Amino acid sequence: MIRRLLLSAAAVLLSACSTPELPSPSLSGTGGLGVVIERASGQVAVVDRLSATRLATVSGLGDLSHASVVFDPTERYAYVFGRDGGLTKVDLLRRVIDRRVMQSGNSIGGAISEDGTLIAVANYTPGGVKVFDAATLDLLADIPATEIGDGKRSKVVGLEDAPGNRFVFSLYDTGETWIADFSADRHAPRLTRFTGIGTQPYDALVTEDGRWYIAGLFGEDGLAKLDLWHPERGVTRILDGYGKGQQPLPVYKMPHLEGWAVAGSLAFLPAIGRHEVLVIDTASWKQVAAIPVYGQPVFAMARPGGRQVWVNFALPDNGTVQVIDTESLTVTDTLTPGPGVLHMEFSPRGDRVWLSVRDQDLLRVYDTDTRREVATLPADKPSGIFFTPRAHRIGL
Amino acid sequence: MIRRLLLSAAAVLLSACSTPELPSPSLSGTGGLGVVIERASGQVAVVDRLSATRLATVSGLGDLSHASVVFDPTERYAYVFGRDGGLTKVDLLRRVIDRRVMQSGNSIGGAISEDGTLIAVANYTPGGVKVFDAATLDLLADIPATEIGDGKRSKVVGLEDAPGNRFVFSLYDTGETWIADFSADRHAPRLTRFTGIGTQPYDALVTEDGRWYIAGLFGEDGLAKLDLWHPERGVTRILDGYGKGQQPLPVYKMPHLEGWAVAGSLAFLPAIGRHEVLVIDTASWKQVAAIPVYGQPVFAMARPGGRQVWVNFALPDNGTVQVIDTESLTVTDTLTPGPGVLHMEFSPRGDRVWLSVRDQDLLRVYDTDTRREVATLPADKPSGIFFTPRAHRIGL
Repeated sequence: MIRRLLLSAAAVLLSACSTPELPSPSLSGTGGLGVVIERASGQVAVVDRLSATRLATVSGLGDLSHASVVFDPTERYAYVFGRDGGLTKVDLLRRVIDRRVMQSGNSIGGAISEDGTLIAVANYTPGGVKVFDAATLDLLADIPATEIGDGKRSKVVGLEDAPGNRFVFSLYDTGETWIADFSADRHAPRLTRFTGIGTQPYDALVTEDGRWYIAGLFGEDGLAKLDLWHPERGVTRILDGYGKGQQPLPVYKMPHLEGWAVAGSLAFLPAIGRHEVLVIDTASWKQVAAIPVYGQPVFAMARPGGRQVWVNFALPDNGTVQVIDTESLTVTDTLTPGPGVLHMEFSPRGDRVWLSVRDQDLLRVYDTDTRREVATLPADKPSGIFFTPRAHRIGL
Repeated sequence: MIRRLLLSAAAVLLSACSTPELPSPSLSGTGGLGVVIERASGQVAVVDRLSATRLATVSGLGDLSHASVVFDPTERYAYVFGRDGGLTKVDLLRRVIDRRVMQSGNSIGGAISEDGTLIAVANYTPGGVKVFDAATLDLLADIPATEIGDGKRSKVVGLEDAPGNRFVFSLYDTGETWIADFSADRHAPRLTRFTGIGTQPYDALVTEDGRWYIAGLFGEDGLAKLDLWHPERGVTRILDGYGKGQQPLPVYKMPHLEGWAVAGSLAFLPAIGRHEVLVIDTASWKQVAAIPVYGQPVFAMARPGGRQVWVNFALPDNGTVQVIDTESLTVTDTLTPGPGVLHMEFSPRGDRVWLSVRDQDLLRVYDTDTRREVATLPADKPSGIFFTPRAHRIGL
C-alpha cells in the first residue's frame, strides 16, 4: 500500500518535470462532479453540475445498456457497471479509466459497501454476486447463486448496499432474497437466505434510511419486504394488489424500483401497466392514493426534501415529464423536454434537476422550483445521470 | 507515517527538477475530508475521516469559541465562523487560509446558500446579517436588524439556509423571525418579517427536508415554528410546555437546537434544565414521550438513517454519552469517552461517529454499531467536528 502510494506520488511529481502527455489536472474538489452514461458509444461524460459543463469524455467501457454507477466515499472514483459484465473504475480527476475488469458474461448493476472498500456486482451469467476490492478491483469473494439445473444458477437482481457492510440481493429464478454480511470478513461473508419470497423478483430498492429492502415481483402480484433492522422477522408481502388485473408487461418495460420516492411518510411508486403513480403510507405499507399521470411511469423520483415527485414515462410517452405535488397529491406541472427522456438526477439540495433527452443528444438542466431550463449540454444518446453526492447515501 | 513517506519522496523527486515553494498537494477527492475546531489555539485540524488521520493544521483563525463550519458544494473549501466576527475560508486541498475577513465585532454562526454562492453570517455587534460572495468574500448585502435604541440593533441568532436560496434567522432582542430571499437578486434580498414570534429566540434549526424552521425561546416557554413551504401561514407556537416549571438556565447552558434529531416521524429534543430527551411527533408537533437520560442534554443527534440518537451532556456530566434506540425509546448504551465531550459527528452513512474529548486533547472514533473505539487522533482542545458531506444537506 505504502509502496503503491509512493509510486503514484513519484508518477505525479515526475510528470511535473518531464514532458507530460496530458495537462496536469488542476486542484479541485469533487463534490460537484458527475457522470453521464453514453450507451451507444460505450463511453461516459464527466460533468460539473455546478457550472453545468461537460469536462471530459472517457471511452472504452463496453456495453453500457442499463448501466449504473456508484462512487467511492472520497468522490474521486466512479464505478460503472456495464451490461456485458464489465466493471470499470473511472478517475474523475484525471478523467481516465483507472482500472477495468470483465468480471462476468452478463451483469445487472452493483453497489458499494457502507465503508467504501467493497464493490459488489449482480450477475446473470454465471448467476451470482462477485465482490471486489474497491482500490484494486481484485476479486475478494464469489457468491454463486442457487443452482437451477443444467449447471446453471439463478440470475441475481436487485443488489443493494445496506448498513453494517451488508449487501442484499434477490434470485430471479428461485424466488429468494439473500443478505451477505461482510462486517467480519471481507473474503467470507456471512450469508442469510430467505426462500419463497415470491415468484421472479426482478428489481429492488433499499429505502434512504437503510431499513427496508423491497423487491418487485414479475411473476405475481405484490412486493416482498424485508426489515433490515430485524431480518429475523423474515420477508413479508405488501401491496398484494400491486400489478393486479393488468396485462403482464415484458420485464424490460417494468418500472424501476430504485425510482421509488419517499417523501415524509409517503412513498410514491410507479404502477405497473397503468398510467398511475401509487401513494403508499410507509407506516402501514397500504396504498392510500393513486395519482393519474400521463403514461406508464418508469421513474418516480422525489426532489430532495420531498416537496415534489418527478415522473418520466415509457414509450410512446417518453418525451414528457410530470411533477407531482406531495402535499396535494396532484400533478401540478407537465413538461415536454423532448423525445427519449430516460433518466433524471437532482442536485443533492434539490435546486436543480438534470434530464437525459436521448433522442436529442442533450442533457437539459432545470430550475426545480420555476421549471425553467437553465442550461443544456451536449451528450451522445445519454441515459443514466449520476452525481457524486450519491457516495454519501445508503441504498443507491 | 504514509504521509511522511510521501512528503520525503516528494522532496527527493522535486529536488530533481525545479525549486518550488511548496510541495504540490497530490490529487485527491474531497468527500472524505473534515475540519475540527481547536478553540484554544485559534486553529483547525484538517482530517481524513476514512483513514482517521490528521492531515494538517491551519492556524490564525482568531477566536473560535462556539465556532461553526459550512462547506462549498465542491467540498474543497470550509467557511469557519468565529466568535470575534472573523470569517475564514480554508482550502482543504492546499491546507491553507484562502481568504479571511473580519466582518463584524461579534458573531454567532452562519450558513451557505442552496446554490453555494452566498455565505451569510449572523452578527451580535452590530446586530444584523452580512452576506458575502463565497468565492471572493466580498460583501454583497448588509441586512441591519431592528433598532432597539441607543443606536443599537437586535442581536441575530439561529441563522439557517433554506431551499430557494433563502436564509432564515431570528432577532433575539425584538422577538422576530426574518426570511431573506436571494433567489432574484444577490445584492438585494426580498425580506419577509414575522414579529411577535416569542420572547428572546436564542437558537433555531431547519429540518433536514428544508420545510420547518423552529426557534427556541429563552424568555418564555415553547418553540416558534415556521413552515417554509407556506410562510404565508405565519409563525405558530408548539410545545407550550417546553422548559416550563424549571429554574431558568443561563443562555450558554441552553441545549443546541441544531442537535435536534429527526428519525422517521419522530424528533428528539434535548429538554431544558431536565435530564430528559423529549420525543415529538412531527405530524402533530406534540410531545409523545420523555426519555430519562444521564444529565442535561446538549446535543441529541440522529445517526443517519435514524436508528439511534446519540446524546452528550452539560457539566458535570460531560464525560458521558448515551445512545437511545429510536424503536424502543430507551437508552441502550452508556459510554464514557472521557471528560469534556463537546461534539459528535457521524459519517454520512452512519457507520462511524467521531467525538471531541476536549479535556483529553483527543478525537475518538467509534464504530456506531458495536460502540467499539476504532481510532483516536490528537487534537488541541477539540470542539466542533464537521465533515464535508454537510455541503449537500439543507439547514446545516
